[in-house]
Amino acid sequence: MLKEKNLKLKEQITAPTGKLGVLIPGIGGAVSTTFIAGVELVRKGLASPIGSLTQLGTIRLGKRFERRSPRIKDFVPLASLDDLVFGGWDLYEANGYEAAMFARVLKREHIEPIKDFLRGITPMKAVFDRRFVKNLDGKYIKEENNLRAQVEALKEDIRRFKDQNGCERCIMIWCGSTEVYLQCEEIHQSVEALQKAIDANDSRIPPSMLYAVAAMESGIPFINGAPNLTVDVPAMVEMASQNNLPIAGKDFKTGQTLMKTILAPGLKSRMLGLEGWYSTNILGNRDGLVLDDKDSFKTKEESKLSVLEYILQPQLYPSLYKNYYHKVTINYYPPRGDNKEGWDCIDIFGWLGYPMQIKVDFQCRDSILAAPLVLDLVLFMDLAQRVGLSGIQEWLSFYFKSPMHKENLYPEHDLFIQSMKLKNTLRYLMGEDQITHFGLDYYMKDDENEEK
Amino acid sequence: MLKEKNLKLKEQITAPTGKLGVLIPGIGGAVSTTFIAGVELVRKGLASPIGSLTQLGTIRLGKRFERRSPRIKDFVPLASLDDLVFGGWDLYEANGYEAAMFARVLKREHIEPIKDFLRGITPMKAVFDRRFVKNLDGKYIKEENNLRAQVEALKEDIRRFKDQNGCERCIMIWCGSTEVYLQCEEIHQSVEALQKAIDANDSRIPPSMLYAVAAMESGIPFINGAPNLTVDVPAMVEMASQNNLPIAGKDFKTGQTLMKTILAPGLKSRMLGLEGWYSTNILGNRDGLVLDDKDSFKTKEESKLSVLEYILQPQLYPSLYKNYYHKVTINYYPPRGDNKEGWDCIDIFGWLGYPMQIKVDFQCRDSILAAPLVLDLVLFMDLAQRVGLSGIQEWLSFYFKSPMHKENLYPEHDLFIQSMKLKNTLRYLMGEDQITHFGLDYYMKDDENEEK
Amino acid sequence: MLKEKNLKLKEQITAPTGKLGVLIPGIGGAVSTTFIAGVELVRKGLASPIGSLTQLGTIRLGKRFERRSPRIKDFVPLASLDDLVFGGWDLYEANGYEAAMFARVLKREHIEPIKDFLRGITPMKAVFDRRFVKNLDGKYIKEENNLRAQVEALKEDIRRFKDQNGCERCIMIWCGSTEVYLQCEEIHQSVEALQKAIDANDSRIPPSMLYAVAAMESGIPFINGAPNLTVDVPAMVEMASQNNLPIAGKDFKTGQTLMKTILAPGLKSRMLGLEGWYSTNILGNRDGLVLDDKDSFKTKEESKLSVLEYILQPQLYPSLYKNYYHKVTINYYPPRGDNKEGWDCIDIFGWLGYPMQIKVDFQCRDSILAAPLVLDLVLFMDLAQRVGLSGIQEWLSFYFKSPMHKENLYPEHDLFIQSMKLKNTLRYLMGEDQITHFGLDYYMKDDENEEK
Amino acid sequence: MLKEKNLKLKEQITAPTGKLGVLIPGIGGAVSTTFIAGVELVRKGLASPIGSLTQLGTIRLGKRFERRSPRIKDFVPLASLDDLVFGGWDLYEANGYEAAMFARVLKREHIEPIKDFLRGITPMKAVFDRRFVKNLDGKYIKEENNLRAQVEALKEDIRRFKDQNGCERCIMIWCGSTEVYLQCEEIHQSVEALQKAIDANDSRIPPSMLYAVAAMESGIPFINGAPNLTVDVPAMVEMASQNNLPIAGKDFKTGQTLMKTILAPGLKSRMLGLEGWYSTNILGNRDGLVLDDKDSFKTKEESKLSVLEYILQPQLYPSLYKNYYHKVTINYYPPRGDNKEGWDCIDIFGWLGYPMQIKVDFQCRDSILAAPLVLDLVLFMDLAQRVGLSGIQEWLSFYFKSPMHKENLYPEHDLFIQSMKLKNTLRYLMGEDQITHFGLDYYMKDDENEEK
Repeated sequence: MLKEKNLKLKEQITAPTGKLGVLIPGIGGAVSTTFIAGVELVRKGLASPIGSLTQLGTIRLGKRFERRSPRIKDFVPLASLDDLVFGGWDLYEANGYEAAMFARVLKREHIEPIKDFLRGITPMKAVFDRRFVKNLDGKYIKEENNLRAQVEALKEDIRRFKDQNGCERCIMIWCGSTEVYLQCEEIHQSVEALQKAIDANDSRIPPSMLYAVAAMESGIPFINGAPNLTVDVPAMVEMASQNNLPIAGKDFKTGQTLMKTILAPGLKSRMLGLEGWYSTNILGNRDGLVLDDKDSFKTKEESKLSVLEYILQPQLYPSLYKNYYHKVTINYYPPRGDNKEGWDCIDIFGWLGYPMQIKVDFQCRDSILAAPLVLDLVLFMDLAQRVGLSGIQEWLSFYFKSPMHKENLYPEHDLFIQSMKLKNTLRYLMGEDQITHFGLDYYMKDDENEEK
Repeated sequence: MLKEKNLKLKEQITAPTGKLGVLIPGIGGAVSTTFIAGVELVRKGLASPIGSLTQLGTIRLGKRFERRSPRIKDFVPLASLDDLVFGGWDLYEANGYEAAMFARVLKREHIEPIKDFLRGITPMKAVFDRRFVKNLDGKYIKEENNLRAQVEALKEDIRRFKDQNGCERCIMIWCGSTEVYLQCEEIHQSVEALQKAIDANDSRIPPSMLYAVAAMESGIPFINGAPNLTVDVPAMVEMASQNNLPIAGKDFKTGQTLMKTILAPGLKSRMLGLEGWYSTNILGNRDGLVLDDKDSFKTKEESKLSVLEYILQPQLYPSLYKNYYHKVTINYYPPRGDNKEGWDCIDIFGWLGYPMQIKVDFQCRDSILAAPLVLDLVLFMDLAQRVGLSGIQEWLSFYFKSPMHKENLYPEHDLFIQSMKLKNTLRYLMGEDQITHFGLDYYMKDDENEEK
Repeated sequence: MLKEKNLKLKEQITAPTGKLGVLIPGIGGAVSTTFIAGVELVRKGLASPIGSLTQLGTIRLGKRFERRSPRIKDFVPLASLDDLVFGGWDLYEANGYEAAMFARVLKREHIEPIKDFLRGITPMKAVFDRRFVKNLDGKYIKEENNLRAQVEALKEDIRRFKDQNGCERCIMIWCGSTEVYLQCEEIHQSVEALQKAIDANDSRIPPSMLYAVAAMESGIPFINGAPNLTVDVPAMVEMASQNNLPIAGKDFKTGQTLMKTILAPGLKSRMLGLEGWYSTNILGNRDGLVLDDKDSFKTKEESKLSVLEYILQPQLYPSLYKNYYHKVTINYYPPRGDNKEGWDCIDIFGWLGYPMQIKVDFQCRDSILAAPLVLDLVLFMDLAQRVGLSGIQEWLSFYFKSPMHKENLYPEHDLFIQSMKLKNTLRYLMGEDQITHFGLDYYMKDDENEEK
Repeated sequence: MLKEKNLKLKEQITAPTGKLGVLIPGIGGAVSTTFIAGVELVRKGLASPIGSLTQLGTIRLGKRFERRSPRIKDFVPLASLDDLVFGGWDLYEANGYEAAMFARVLKREHIEPIKDFLRGITPMKAVFDRRFVKNLDGKYIKEENNLRAQVEALKEDIRRFKDQNGCERCIMIWCGSTEVYLQCEEIHQSVEALQKAIDANDSRIPPSMLYAVAAMESGIPFINGAPNLTVDVPAMVEMASQNNLPIAGKDFKTGQTLMKTILAPGLKSRMLGLEGWYSTNILGNRDGLVLDDKDSFKTKEESKLSVLEYILQPQLYPSLYKNYYHKVTINYYPPRGDNKEGWDCIDIFGWLGYPMQIKVDFQCRDSILAAPLVLDLVLFMDLAQRVGLSGIQEWLSFYFKSPMHKENLYPEHDLFIQSMKLKNTLRYLMGEDQITHFGLDYYMKDDENEEK
């Protein structure tokens, strides 16, 4: 029985002790600095980690009338914020304080009190190849000029970081820019082919893959916050499996796509048809600049477009979802700064085919929405590692625009199913019953209430 | 075991044979005529029942890789559209054709082909009391001037309708206007008190309650599409129980509240805080006119406001949801006609408290959204009756703004939980496994896949 | 000839020398403090007077090819910002610094550098009568309890302020709250009747009128920034005339109404019909709180509704503008603070009657929009006084929601006509040609270019 | 004196007698069919020419208290709708009925009553060159394969049309698609160079120029409704002058740009600064398809972007308008059909630099907005021709996104100045006083009221 199995599991989970290193490629970006500064502010009691499931979320256990809803962090053994230490790479030399000021996400009153702490966050030189990110031109770059040497240099960085900070465990999370569109080829099919290609200095291997290889060869789980393939190729899944490491990705689900995976399941649940969905985004930060390049945008576009297809299941509902027109555009608009505005124009139809419209203007903040995802992913991946889960972590789909998944399964994009999957996984790990929201039993007279 | 129990259940379900009468107080309103005309158009192959879960929905069964997703109507034994016959009451004498033209919901090209059929839908005289709906002044009203006599006249109407149409079973569904706000008092606490009050011609008993009593005393399940208390008082729940009848309500969930129960669970799932939610509605139909009366609006307002409270669970998340400001207004705006426009202005906050905004403009159509709900509710209530479920049907919460619920349980407003509840109930009735969206088993090597 | 007449006029204009006192009833409100703090910041070179025509505007003179467009303040002799001194009354005792902090309009970084200056702005005790502003309850109120004594007390305040500050001239501008709706009655028809009513302590005379009487009896022009009648009654126009004083009003044109007087003339210029215009406002400041009172709202509503009627001229265009439905609502919504959000839903129709829609979401800031109007009005009224213009100043209609006007003339609401009127008046005062935007002369071969 | 001169002028204006031929390149497009069908519906009393200044507009004359506001068509001698006859060219062979059905702008109930009339509108074969409009592929094209022969063929078409329809006068108005971007070169500098280039079959001469040459060589005024250069080059202005013909253009001002030229003057009048203006358009008609081609879009983009620059006058207001970011995108979105939706996101700043936002969602209909412009332009150009005005008609700037103008003058984009210019021109032609909106005279005691 599943239940017995996971009661055993619960006992096996290692307690989180010692420092947990968070290694971030792209540590000088807006998301990274907002995440790091935020954790420090929370540790000092100066702000609240809004948006973080691990910090604020609760989980209902048992029957509704039991009213058992502990905090998630009291329910599963997660690393404490106090144990996090931060390091990473960037192609700009700015320290954490300078980078946070440059990003213009946080107000001065949030940065000043932790100025010294942020100054202490200094990036290591990045592995960078401009062919993969055309609109950036940082100069703080490693001298090694072949792929294998670059991987080894990154591994050496990691060793040094762990030693210097006395880390017991580490997690690497890619917060770098979106690389140009890449298709999965022969060299990405197996660990062997990939390693050969690295040795051969193959030009189809982007920097992000080198970081992932360095992480896994150092025994460190890898999370991908951008839409690049990176670990979403068979070679990397194999490598994760060989090393008993969890991997997760890809592309943090924030802003407009988050909204899309909220609305689309709602429309589908009501069997409302879709004629068209037009989405435009305006944003003025470095991310916007990078995505102004057509090739980088293509990577992002793929990630953004597939969402509806999987949620709406046109194969099951051809009369509702077979012929909708879906268009996504992103425009660089400097006045918006790090704030991001998404405008969605949704054309639906109902009873007898009558048309209706929904317009959504989401005036959000990119890094503010992404930062708590970084935190949750780091903590949950560390849990996964300690529990002994390896390979793709589908239960973390909740956090991604393009969730990784087993080859013969479809990805799950519906935010509500993703949330349920995540919580039922936690319940499972802790030996608690799955929640089904059935509930008819409450209304049955002779009910023994064995299940819910 | 639950599973065995419901395998037995499955066998007990009576097959739906014979005519199913649909009895509608408010049969001349926009929702009713749109529903009736639509069913006829669908029967004639002239339009599609978009928005109806019973007609278009599918239900996933078993493991994901089994790819079993039958249509709901092929999975559970529902009455066929061909077996539906329509009757009802109204305070205006217009026949179905005149009423549909007046409502200006359907285009002429949808009404003309079924003109004769619609002309045949003639209302019975309504029980009406203007104190409960101040802005209407119909004259097609029963002469009986005491409550008991009115109940008996309605029962006589029902008997005649059943006979004339050869109905095997009937369902009554309230599609009338919103009555003024009423608080639950002593006389609504028990069947005995209620019956006495009817005999005493008590002024605290609105017409909708008389219809419900007439229905139940005629052995007919009752559904309430408006926010009036009607069957949502202890006396009526008791009466349903005594008569082994299912009841459901209240207030069809369409338009802005539908949107709210899609968005709010999404925001909560991500632990995004709420500072304020301003909702304004403009509509120009008779419903808009009725709600321009302060007392009728109060009934509606109560129904609309409570939604967020239950979804957001401020008791669990005080830092996120304790202090939000929620305002709902409705304005009569004739240019909009039956179309309804809802504008929502949502002030949220994320990581470290930074504010963000969402604006939603929903240009919807009231009756187009409501009509498929009427159809689904009629068919599901008929199923419930044949299955032998009586009393409050919480599994139909999916359709209501203010779902009825057991006294010691909280109502469930989250559209996604409601949808899950509904589908897991159907799975249960048919002896299928509950779906939990767990899914970790797909990724476990030694997995025997006993549960999902 | 007009031209000769005004060349003489130009020579007569007194140069602005000495201090100009700005006397503000409601000096502790958000508009007043934003205005005062802003002037001081501009004087110190710390900010720019964006939104002020007197400070930033230019005025085209002569033919297009002459390219003469001096700044308005270099063209007409206006008082310098350096010569402004501020005083006023309020029902809360807070000094300028405390009031600015309370208003939460300006950022701390704009208030701190002028902290001492603001602290020096201390209100005089207000004349207040709660029957006229129900939702406020300030206690910093004059003890005098009859109207005449209150007028005299205000005049004494004025005398003292002028002396203490060495003011050569003064302007009074009402920035207080909106008083409840009042109709013009017999007592408001002549100076004589009004003075008698003051002596009789008549309850139909609101505080704002007492301020106006005190101003005029002290030889000071009066401007009304709220929708109260105040000086918009025959008695007050007569009093202004008797004292050779200019008066202006009423209700600063900001936010949604500003937008309306921009859009409506545009639609009319294109002969696009109007079916309906729905306007909702949400705001969270003290102004919002006051307008939550039905009687104060009525005063505001009258002011807001009339705008369309005059601009669209239904008598000239019955097929386009006779039957539109116009609805304006204001809702108190604390999360918005002093920011104000107006949402307009405009239903128009074009060629052959086909409908179209415009939705405008104006996320504005009340006091930020109003402050430069206060500045411009003070300076232009001082100019008018020095030029010798008395009575209603129609050329300042540009600044008001309900511009005052001669009895036999209609008010001008079209922002573009108002702007033209203002600028052509300035051209007239300075002996320059009127601009007509004709321009055909540029294209005529034998053109002598005598007019433009 | 101007006044005397134009009193003479008034007497010289030829009365409009006989048929007026309207020759339309692109007669099968949505704008053309909507225009033609509309005129016929109006002639039959079946619909109203909403949006047409010539048909519905009034013009104020004299002083305000005179209350003289005749209809424009009663004030100036315009051709009657009854005298219009329609002809033109298209690259698709569909007749007017088929084309109107295809366009899906008008409802069946508007097309059916004039079915026969529309069937009688059959296009002549077009001169077409796919290099200039890449996304269209019509086959109904003239066989002539050199430019001169094509011009002659068009002239022959015109002669035949005039004869067959007994036209006394004709106007040609380009309603064809937007051609690819073209820069003004040597060959477009003089009539001589242009004629040589036509003879040399130069590839830099697009079809639209050939139509214009054919028109002018046939003594017919030419109007350009698209953003192509066409007559906006020195050679064409010269040709118009030589032939004493009026020309006008370019690019009908509808939709988003119309809105922009309403809002921008409003913001400027209030001295509100602009930080950024983001405009996106979605439309699904053939126009949208054509503009999906980058080169055609560039032509349109130039036309759309320049609008703000001229209205805002950054050279006069550098602190307000020097650094704004202006972005315009157009996206093909089939669900929208001929309807067009423009979304504008406008970032402004006010007093002391505080930011505010305006969002405008304009759900308009392209052809419905354009059709009345076609009508007005045809009638006003015919008037210009009869009055003897030749060359660029700046007074018709009101109708264009990129108004043509004299070399040493800037174009006028402000809708309100354009409207004033147009009306004052009409007043001038009829010997009436110019309107200045001055008005101070109404308030001057010794006023002789010589001017207004």
